[in-house]
Amino acid sequence: MSLTEPTQADIEALSKIVGAAHSLTSQADQARYLTEWRGRYTGRTAVVLKPNSTAEVAAILTYCNTKRIGVVPQGGNTGLVGGQIPSESGTEIIVSLERLNRIRSVDAEAGHMVVDAGVTLKAVQNSADDAGRLFPLSVASEGSCQIGGNIATNAGGTGVLAYGSMRSQILGLEAVLADGRIWSNLSALKKDNTGYDIRDLLIGSEGTLAIITAATLRLVAKPVEIATALVALDTLNDVAKLFRLADTRLGASLTAFEFMSARSVDFATQHGPIKLAPFATRPPWTVLLDVSAHEDGRAGQALESALEAATQDGIATAAVLATSTTQAQSLWALRDSISEAQKPEGGSIKHDVSVPIAAQPEFVRQAGQLIERLCPGARPVVFGHFGDGNIHYNVSQPKGADKTAFLARWDEISNAVHKLVLECGGSISAEHGIGQMKRDELARIKSPVDIAIMRAIKTAFDPHGILNPGKVL
Amino acid sequence: MSLTEPTQADIEALSKIVGAAHSLTSQADQARYLTEWRGRYTGRTAVVLKPNSTAEVAAILTYCNTKRIGVVPQGGNTGLVGGQIPSESGTEIIVSLERLNRIRSVDAEAGHMVVDAGVTLKAVQNSADDAGRLFPLSVASEGSCQIGGNIATNAGGTGVLAYGSMRSQILGLEAVLADGRIWSNLSALKKDNTGYDIRDLLIGSEGTLAIITAATLRLVAKPVEIATALVALDTLNDVAKLFRLADTRLGASLTAFEFMSARSVDFATQHGPIKLAPFATRPPWTVLLDVSAHEDGRAGQALESALEAATQDGIATAAVLATSTTQAQSLWALRDSISEAQKPEGGSIKHDVSVPIAAQPEFVRQAGQLIERLCPGARPVVFGHFGDGNIHYNVSQPKGADKTAFLARWDEISNAVHKLVLECGGSISAEHGIGQMKRDELARIKSPVDIAIMRAIKTAFDPHGILNPGKVL
Repeated sequence: MSLTEPTQADIEALSKIVGAAHSLTSQADQARYLTEWRGRYTGRTAVVLKPNSTAEVAAILTYCNTKRIGVVPQGGNTGLVGGQIPSESGTEIIVSLERLNRIRSVDAEAGHMVVDAGVTLKAVQNSADDAGRLFPLSVASEGSCQIGGNIATNAGGTGVLAYGSMRSQILGLEAVLADGRIWSNLSALKKDNTGYDIRDLLIGSEGTLAIITAATLRLVAKPVEIATALVALDTLNDVAKLFRLADTRLGASLTAFEFMSARSVDFATQHGPIKLAPFATRPPWTVLLDVSAHEDGRAGQALESALEAATQDGIATAAVLATSTTQAQSLWALRDSISEAQKPEGGSIKHDVSVPIAAQPEFVRQAGQLIERLCPGARPVVFGHFGDGNIHYNVSQPKGADKTAFLARWDEISNAVHKLVLECGGSISAEHGIGQMKRDELARIKSPVDIAIMRAIKTAFDPHGILNPGKVL
Repeated sequence: MSLTEPTQADIEALSKIVGAAHSLTSQADQARYLTEWRGRYTGRTAVVLKPNSTAEVAAILTYCNTKRIGVVPQGGNTGLVGGQIPSESGTEIIVSLERLNRIRSVDAEAGHMVVDAGVTLKAVQNSADDAGRLFPLSVASEGSCQIGGNIATNAGGTGVLAYGSMRSQILGLEAVLADGRIWSNLSALKKDNTGYDIRDLLIGSEGTLAIITAATLRLVAKPVEIATALVALDTLNDVAKLFRLADTRLGASLTAFEFMSARSVDFATQHGPIKLAPFATRPPWTVLLDVSAHEDGRAGQALESALEAATQDGIATAAVLATSTTQAQSLWALRDSISEAQKPEGGSIKHDVSVPIAAQPEFVRQAGQLIERLCPGARPVVFGHFGDGNIHYNVSQPKGADKTAFLARWDEISNAVHKLVLECGGSISAEHGIGQMKRDELARIKSPVDIAIMRAIKTAFDPHGILNPGKVL
């Protein structure tokens, strides 16, 4: 399937759909849509369109499908695998969902809200909070990422442990198909077994099967108390033991279990906004836990007694319980600043992987040996969502090394790490998706049957291949 | 697409795959596979095959796909919409999964198990329990239904409120495609964003896209205490208020919220095994609640204080807390016997519907008027999973009426009830699926876009239409 570069007449016709003010053709106007924030992916496009309604999205797709023009949907442009950036071919236009930013309705009592795709995650969280409910998805980029992008990539983050990933928060969807037909299923029903699960197929399909324009989101009961603690541990095996202890004792009230290596905390305290050093000496591993309760006083009590048990059993070497909301926020800010704090340390080769929970200590041990062998002096920055088996295995360049030369080894180092991940029964993309970054790798690691099914589904939804070309498949 | 009746040579070739002992051709041997338990659906088949491995299932499908022979997969034959029963055409064989009944592995610590499709739900629950874990799906037919059927129909039941439907319990699947290719993804990873969500597409597809042969199931922490209570209420609005109160105060620890009309309890105590009458006079509505706790003593305490609040607020008129496991089991047995207890009361026209939680009181009120208008004297037996918006709106015949004449009005009455369901923003199949029972209705109520997408997916997976023909679509 070959796509064609839009002609001047095409651009004019498309601009007419959204209005000239919302059709960007100059380099200056387009710049922020064409490069992702780390500068790893850039592309080229004839026009960036900013539709204001589902009907406008439908009109754009109808036109592009007929003319065989590629369409790259874009949310907050915070994706980490290049899924939102067009190729250099010029045969793709960008459809930014940012003007679809209405909160259509909030039903606090029933526990759901209907929102346009372009609403930011933060705005969704705030709106739920105002209604006395919790929208539990939380990621570092929540101030700028958009809910449509979160859905298209099945975003994860720190709330997955107790509340599930984005997929678990979706009751209904509205989307526009490649040929412009609108598929609308914004029902808020918890149980509906009528036909195939098109909703879950679209979630995580990264804009290659349809453009999501709205969603019905599930809101959960807001905990009346959240207790937060930071725990010091000597080994990753102890981290695993602490997780089992916490999981058994706290059940569904354990709402976060994040882990950080000593270097992660070092970088964060050196370069991030939070300078606190909670422990006298930096422990090899630090765990950040949240326990949520629906009755006052229970969360702190439950967390405290779990940590007492962990200390008595010799699993934890020290623990501090946040005594105020401000303190809890500081602990979280420390955790959230790790990714950004790697920048001043030079180049970083990042991995978003998952392995079975119990395999994490062994994976991290072997990966460390692997990195030291491949690139002596390179500095793994290991952190992530331990309770989900999701490790952000980032590797900062050796001190004083050349950044460009180090980053040139991305594929070599990344392939080696991913090989180890697969040997451990893991996944090379836990929560960031495939995009363009891992597309070729996906084709290599999936079974031929898997790829064949995905291709058949892609063809069924998008016979001319106009939707987000070159992504995923 | 036309299917062909298997010839004698076909039957011999297919029998060879599974062995003569596991290939049933006599009427006597086939009988229990050809009629569902209520006798509503019967069919005809040349042969019932009982494969012993995924490879045998694959060989059967490869053969049938080449010869254009239809294949009806069958689990425990407990489905309620005829999805497991072949047509009368003779062009379909039955593949029973009952001999695929191995529990492949249990990893208690990591919280998952891998099982063959033919393992009964009860055996899965028991195996999880033996390992100190909980498999939370629970349905009335759990002693005989099979996990593969539960997955193919996305079964619901009484555990959905806190733990989600079958879909939420699945980490990985293994399935055989129409042409015999095996798709295997039994990974136990909690987070894996690599490509399209084929797993969720197969879940609930009722055997029309592939035959599920195995699954990796999620096991959750076993509560150390479950407190059970029965609550008396005057109106359905009070039931809705009680649910909101319980949801707010108890959060994730509220693990069941079932409701029963007075007539449901009457029938159950008259005809079921449990004769208890917990309240001096029969309340108009009775709610059965479970609260689960991970620390001893907390569940009973939390439930008691919630019920105190409900009584003080005038929501509940009375409440009894089970004081022993035996008593709790009796309360559940009462609830579980409702469906069966309708039999001695004559014909029953059954509906498995869902409406938004808040719309339930109004739906039940209007449905009652509708039934009285259509069929004066008919007796609605209203019960179900209130917390999921899932109502089993069953209608027993008027006292002394002719059973056959009453059941002859099934479509007329059912269409009227479903029309009301849709007006309330609900679903005509909450947890039982579509099968053959609701196939024509599905085509009427879904949007043309919905039906077109489903057909495109069906064609992509099963181009010759051999898998469970005439079901769903």
